[in-house]
Amino acid sequence: MTDTRRISIMGSTGSIGTSALDVVQHANAVGDVRFEVCALAAGSDAELLARQAIACSAEIAIIADESRLPELKERLAGTRIEAAAGDAAIEEAASRPVDRVLAAIVGAAGLHSTLSAVRAGNDIAIANKESIVCGGRLILQEARKAGVKVLPVDSEHSAIFQCLGDGRQLDQLTITASGGPFRTASLSEMRSASPQQAAAHPNWSMGIKNSIDSATLMNKALEFIEAGFLFGTEGERIEVLVHPQSIVHGMAHFTDGSVIAQLGAPDMRTPISYALGWPERIATTVDRLDLGAIGRLDFEPVDAERFPAIRLAREAYSHGAGATTVLNCANESAVSAFIAGQCGFLDISWAVEETLNGYFAGSMSGMACDTLEEIALLDDYSRKVAADLLEKARSRVGG
Amino acid sequence: MTDTRRISIMGSTGSIGTSALDVVQHANAVGDVRFEVCALAAGSDAELLARQAIACSAEIAIIADESRLPELKERLAGTRIEAAAGDAAIEEAASRPVDRVLAAIVGAAGLHSTLSAVRAGNDIAIANKESIVCGGRLILQEARKAGVKVLPVDSEHSAIFQCLGDGRQLDQLTITASGGPFRTASLSEMRSASPQQAAAHPNWSMGIKNSIDSATLMNKALEFIEAGFLFGTEGERIEVLVHPQSIVHGMAHFTDGSVIAQLGAPDMRTPISYALGWPERIATTVDRLDLGAIGRLDFEPVDAERFPAIRLAREAYSHGAGATTVLNCANESAVSAFIAGQCGFLDISWAVEETLNGYFAGSMSGMACDTLEEIALLDDYSRKVAADLLEKARSRVGG
Repeated sequence: MTDTRRISIMGSTGSIGTSALDVVQHANAVGDVRFEVCALAAGSDAELLARQAIACSAEIAIIADESRLPELKERLAGTRIEAAAGDAAIEEAASRPVDRVLAAIVGAAGLHSTLSAVRAGNDIAIANKESIVCGGRLILQEARKAGVKVLPVDSEHSAIFQCLGDGRQLDQLTITASGGPFRTASLSEMRSASPQQAAAHPNWSMGIKNSIDSATLMNKALEFIEAGFLFGTEGERIEVLVHPQSIVHGMAHFTDGSVIAQLGAPDMRTPISYALGWPERIATTVDRLDLGAIGRLDFEPVDAERFPAIRLAREAYSHGAGATTVLNCANESAVSAFIAGQCGFLDISWAVEETLNGYFAGSMSGMACDTLEEIALLDDYSRKVAADLLEKARSRVGG
Repeated sequence: MTDTRRISIMGSTGSIGTSALDVVQHANAVGDVRFEVCALAAGSDAELLARQAIACSAEIAIIADESRLPELKERLAGTRIEAAAGDAAIEEAASRPVDRVLAAIVGAAGLHSTLSAVRAGNDIAIANKESIVCGGRLILQEARKAGVKVLPVDSEHSAIFQCLGDGRQLDQLTITASGGPFRTASLSEMRSASPQQAAAHPNWSMGIKNSIDSATLMNKALEFIEAGFLFGTEGERIEVLVHPQSIVHGMAHFTDGSVIAQLGAPDMRTPISYALGWPERIATTVDRLDLGAIGRLDFEPVDAERFPAIRLAREAYSHGAGATTVLNCANESAVSAFIAGQCGFLDISWAVEETLNGYFAGSMSGMACDTLEEIALLDDYSRKVAADLLEKARSRVGG
């Protein structure tokens, strides 16, 4: 018997979105679970969006960049697929009734459509860690109210979700980090690293923002916070472990001494398929794991000196309130500056730390940060502070 | 709220039995699950059996060796604990109503009491792999009839049981092998190995029979067969992987590319506690796993030339009927000869292979082997054939 699942994909042209459509296509060809696609939303690539919408017979395609709407309409002419543009249209599309919305818009921008989907009662497959880091309390609170499930897509969180069972007798969670391109680099090599060097991730194929985050381990810092929110776990009970082969993605440790781990080739189609198909598993074409051929798995603690991001995340998560929003938005701002050649690689974590310290010392730190308005306020504040800090540092060096 | 569990332990003075009593004692001191002990049975160590029975306030203690009954009675004098002796008394005790019987009598001798427990409707925690290898079909058939659960205790099977979920979308199972003391030894070193060398297991502390089996990988061969029976899996879908650190105990591979693995310090208290406590996990004092400190996990295929046991197990399991009984009993016979200094280390697998080949070619191979009588017949036959083969080989060498 076939189980039909209606889904929408917010962020369909990014790396998560395209992998998700690959999963959907394969499942529809061979699987016991069939997918119908309601909405696809993308940022600015109207051509790819239109091709995707046609290939999966979506009902509606929405482009965030309104200037691309004419192109999108033209490419969809002669089909039954609706075309729309702008943030409001994306939020409307996210609220159309489906079984699951894949929230895969990168950055804090994903927060609004995720919230629309949750409020409409749609279960969420959450690939957008920034929206959890910034708006975790708000999203999870609204999800409880609406009775919707928030299913992880990040490979580490999917791993934990697969290992957790009923979550009782839990001792500790582990998320693994590849260590990124600078795992064995010296501090001085890291100081002079270019965006191209930082974006060269050894194991995973991902977008540029995520690749830079993976080089600073800020990606893992955000995932640490995401794990805290999604599994309701104190920071002290979440371990981050460097594991260069990216085969073991996450683990749950229990009080009887048992550790349940999820392993697999580093391919996002596995966690995506789990989040879309849960509670069913969906057959994928992901390479099968052959540990006998791989031969060896390594694990090491995080070097806190070269990678301060994990410590910053622990501080922010333990402070609570808006601190994780500050960390995320300062980081987004600093990563943009780094990609634009306006700061060095080590300045990213430096700017985040300074922004956080300013926040801890200032009056904003008292704000609860559980409404969209408060989150937006802190978002602006943190980006601006981080950018100013980097600007000042630049002019000192330049002058 | 405390959950009370009534149990019996068949084979209480062996390594599994003593670990189980350690688990019980700790759980009763701190846990949410409390254990009451009904029966303890042992082979010949009346002193330890009496001490155990007193420490856990058992209702009855049974010693297999009837000549030790006076000593047992004397040591239990002044307590309310019943004392009994002999195989029939063990079978009677196994059939007393409890929530779970831990079947931990080593060798084919455990089969009768396991079957008594099953027929009485007692759930089984099965540590006695030989009884599954010899009588798997019979035990599982009777278990289905009686509606009792058969919960694995072997660390590899416990691992798979913890990883399997509802068992759907399963692709493959993996059981790991430490590789034993001869993992890196040459064939000629293995040829001249003494029982002391063979019994020096690198990771696990276990009895002598199991240690020798672990050196030939016959232990893993039996576990391969046990996994096939317990999880109803074809041999081609069960992988055996050498993993010298004994940290990853077993894995379940799914069709989405996900592999769920169970890890832990090599300490039998974890799987024992899982089998006794299931569906609850019971807190233990087992060392917590610290992968950052361990640093490295290795995996390699089994070398079929030095360790023919796995191939023999595949042949026996795929032949079905009595072949796995022949393999087990020929091995028990050959291991006894090896311990007694009557044959060399490599002769163990040789004798098993020759005994199996004789069985395949002979008329016994048509026997269904799903009654105790047929199993006993094949048991005798295989021991005798293996012993004769080794005797002949010895006299050739001696003469």
